[in-house]
Amino acid sequence: MAFNYPNGRKFVSRPDAGVKTPVKKMNFSNRGMTLEEDINASNEYYLTNGIAVVHKKPTPVQIVDVHYPKRSAAVIKEAYFKQTSTTDYNGVYRGRYIDFEAKETQNPSSFPLKNFHSHQIEHMQAVMDQGAIAFVILRFTANEEIFLMKAEDLIQFWERMLAGGRKSIAKPEVEACSSSILLGFQPRIDYIKIIEQLYASYF
Amino acid sequence: MAFNYPNGRKFVSRPDAGVKTPVKKMNFSNRGMTLEEDINASNEYYLTNGIAVVHKKPTPVQIVDVHYPKRSAAVIKEAYFKQTSTTDYNGVYRGRYIDFEAKETQNPSSFPLKNFHSHQIEHMQAVMDQGAIAFVILRFTANEEIFLMKAEDLIQFWERMLAGGRKSIAKPEVEACSSSILLGFQPRIDYIKIIEQLYASYF
Repeated sequence: MAFNYPNGRKFVSRPDAGVKTPVKKMNFSNRGMTLEEDINASNEYYLTNGIAVVHKKPTPVQIVDVHYPKRSAAVIKEAYFKQTSTTDYNGVYRGRYIDFEAKETQNPSSFPLKNFHSHQIEHMQAVMDQGAIAFVILRFTANEEIFLMKAEDLIQFWERMLAGGRKSIAKPEVEACSSSILLGFQPRIDYIKIIEQLYASYF
Repeated sequence: MAFNYPNGRKFVSRPDAGVKTPVKKMNFSNRGMTLEEDINASNEYYLTNGIAVVHKKPTPVQIVDVHYPKRSAAVIKEAYFKQTSTTDYNGVYRGRYIDFEAKETQNPSSFPLKNFHSHQIEHMQAVMDQGAIAFVILRFTANEEIFLMKAEDLIQFWERMLAGGRKSIAKPEVEACSSSILLGFQPRIDYIKIIEQLYASYF
């Protein structure tokens, strides 16, 4: 089964053969789109409409061996994934530097903190110290809920873990300190609207 | 011949065997360091001292084939370099988004515009439209001169080229509209000091 979305993206079904799961109410608006794709599409919308300029950083790769064939493009023959020392997304909105990470979990009741690295937490603290707007976009895939949590709140939960506390953020905790983002058509994840409200004093 | 810089970096001489060139007055402070290394070292200094948070973006790579050997790290077996659609550096200084590209030329009398891609020029315009601070750091390697030029000036020269004008920026033109940066010890290229002066009204 395959059909095209209005945006030209191809949907391909991925049946989990043999796995019996209760039939879930489908959310057609998002089928087949990952959080990253949704955010990239939103960033494209912001860019095209002059609202904000935000890009995903390329995946950092340690290149070991490159071949240079005659009359064709250089080919990387050996490379390794490197751990990122920053977050994945940054950019500018109304002069202000914004910086965020986007993560999803299949866990319906809590958000595991292992989705983040200590380097990323340190990076978020460093940019906040410089007056940046830093946050995370969290998606619970089980019921397609998306939240925007300020980095200062994430850091609180991170420090609780370092102090021996729980290794995740309970769902009610996420709900209590985050802003819910409803999936839209364009932009799909309108995080700038939330930023505008949460950080009104910055603009 | 090899010795260590105070920062622990190893200097290795690269004699151009057989090429006779007039003996040039050496600039010991920078021998063996590329512009990129100098800027990365400066960014590290800014980060460590809480002055600014600026990182170089990873080189964008299109990954085609990855092997997952048992009990060791994933190996990228086939990948290609992608053209960047943005500049190499961005970050935050006192809340403000800053964005720049760094390029060097061996040409002693002019800076060739082919060092930039149209995507980068468009990106600089887009971030400026969002109130960002955008600029380029230009190095003339022949005599180790470094300049900071505002993106709006670079774009003027770019548009002159598109209108059929010269494909480079004459050295006197660079001198007339840029700020000269003297190589320092720490940070090596103190571009933040220049930014502070040039964009005083932003802070």
